[in-house]
Amino acid sequence: VLARPEGQVLFCADAAVAGVHLDVSAFPVADLGWRAAVATLSDLAAMGGRPLAAVVTICAPGDVDVVEVESGAVAACREHGCEVAGGDLSRAATLVVTVAALGAVGAGGAVRRSGARPGDALFVTGPLGGSAAGLAARRAGAGLDDPAVLAHRRPSPRLAHGEAAARSGASAMIDVSDGLARDLRRLAAASKVGVALDVVPRAPGATLDDALGGGEDYELVVAHPEPAALVEAFDRAGLDEPLRIGTVVEGATLRLGGEELAELGWRHGG
Amino acid sequence: VLARPEGQVLFCADAAVAGVHLDVSAFPVADLGWRAAVATLSDLAAMGGRPLAAVVTICAPGDVDVVEVESGAVAACREHGCEVAGGDLSRAATLVVTVAALGAVGAGGAVRRSGARPGDALFVTGPLGGSAAGLAARRAGAGLDDPAVLAHRRPSPRLAHGEAAARSGASAMIDVSDGLARDLRRLAAASKVGVALDVVPRAPGATLDDALGGGEDYELVVAHPEPAALVEAFDRAGLDEPLRIGTVVEGATLRLGGEELAELGWRHGG
Repeated sequence: VLARPEGQVLFCADAAVAGVHLDVSAFPVADLGWRAAVATLSDLAAMGGRPLAAVVTICAPGDVDVVEVESGAVAACREHGCEVAGGDLSRAATLVVTVAALGAVGAGGAVRRSGARPGDALFVTGPLGGSAAGLAARRAGAGLDDPAVLAHRRPSPRLAHGEAAARSGASAMIDVSDGLARDLRRLAAASKVGVALDVVPRAPGATLDDALGGGEDYELVVAHPEPAALVEAFDRAGLDEPLRIGTVVEGATLRLGGEELAELGWRHGG
Repeated sequence: VLARPEGQVLFCADAAVAGVHLDVSAFPVADLGWRAAVATLSDLAAMGGRPLAAVVTICAPGDVDVVEVESGAVAACREHGCEVAGGDLSRAATLVVTVAALGAVGAGGAVRRSGARPGDALFVTGPLGGSAAGLAARRAGAGLDDPAVLAHRRPSPRLAHGEAAARSGASAMIDVSDGLARDLRRLAAASKVGVALDVVPRAPGATLDDALGGGEDYELVVAHPEPAALVEAFDRAGLDEPLRIGTVVEGATLRLGGEELAELGWRHGG
């Protein structure tokens, strides 16, 4: 039971699955809980929202320490000001953590994927591929507390960035959960636009493939008609400067430099 | 993005797992979606709530028809006035459906498990064991549309019953998701009371074991200080008369007739 929220309410859920979203032979199961929570909180961030409350559902085989799994989800929620309002526990052959969250947005309303217009500047909130590079580092023998590995284990949702971008008039946002290329494709399809990338900022140790396809970095892609307003809003909020990556264009292709990376496909798909 | 709800907000989630909550060799996977939704809507019913919106998360192996799974969850939500606000899809080795729901409660506030007091009358909203009996009927060769089998495949959350009970002053409620004995134990532990059952109403074809232990009937157990007020409220709402099953008592045991069924254990556990 929650007190009545103010304004519009955001409601979303994401799941993290052992063996798909986390190699549980290489990482503690608490990391799966953390990542399920961050995936959901990141959905709120991408709409310019603030988390209010979360519910954690854990489905687990009998030999999994569900208290540890839950502790990771709870820690991620608490670190980002999100109350854990309840949960549910089931038996299952595969470990699956689902986190549903409620969020609030300010008076300006929620930012959607569908608002990008040709001419908008495109930014990311940070360099990409750190999660994929962290996984590779762990597999090459790096310890669990290695900073590169922590980028894989303990990503952060960009809540402050999303709020600042929304307040400054961002036209569209999406979080990088499945890799920049796939998530840009979603934003472009929802907005019926194309994307011309100038540069793909890479996290330390990340390849271009990691940065374009790695996913689970949870940086935000922001489309903005007035780039200076975004830069100023981030500065005022004490955030690192957003990284300009390109421009929203007419058409239905994703280009990097002069080269076509992908047909975005929204002409056929809707 | 949802319009701002009025009053208190209820927020809960439940999962349904293939092989645990549904024998997917004997039933369509849409039934798993339906049952995940009903499990969650039933949580709202047990607090006297009304569903506002749901988010459906499906984790599935590649060979599962996820559209069919989702259709079951969506059908259950729609039938009970609940908007499906979104969803998420992941790969997983096991089919798991999680439904999170938001609900509203009236001015009287939410009913909890913890309010039962010695002397309160105990009711259920309908006979029990129908889900277990339906599974047995299916395994004995009954068709998918057999009414007994439908009790297993397509249970209903008792939303109107929960609202009427809450308005009439119910002191505590719980839904029968894991079997009457286990769910009564939870209500008793939360309220620090005992339970004296006079009778366990059985659905057609259900054994006493089915009725006490079968679960997933989603009838509500209602504790009420004024039994006549509950009966009148159900009558006014056009609902079947609630079935009196016993009385809340001092102590920490669950009795049926004169016989002790279980030590409720709350003295030690909580």
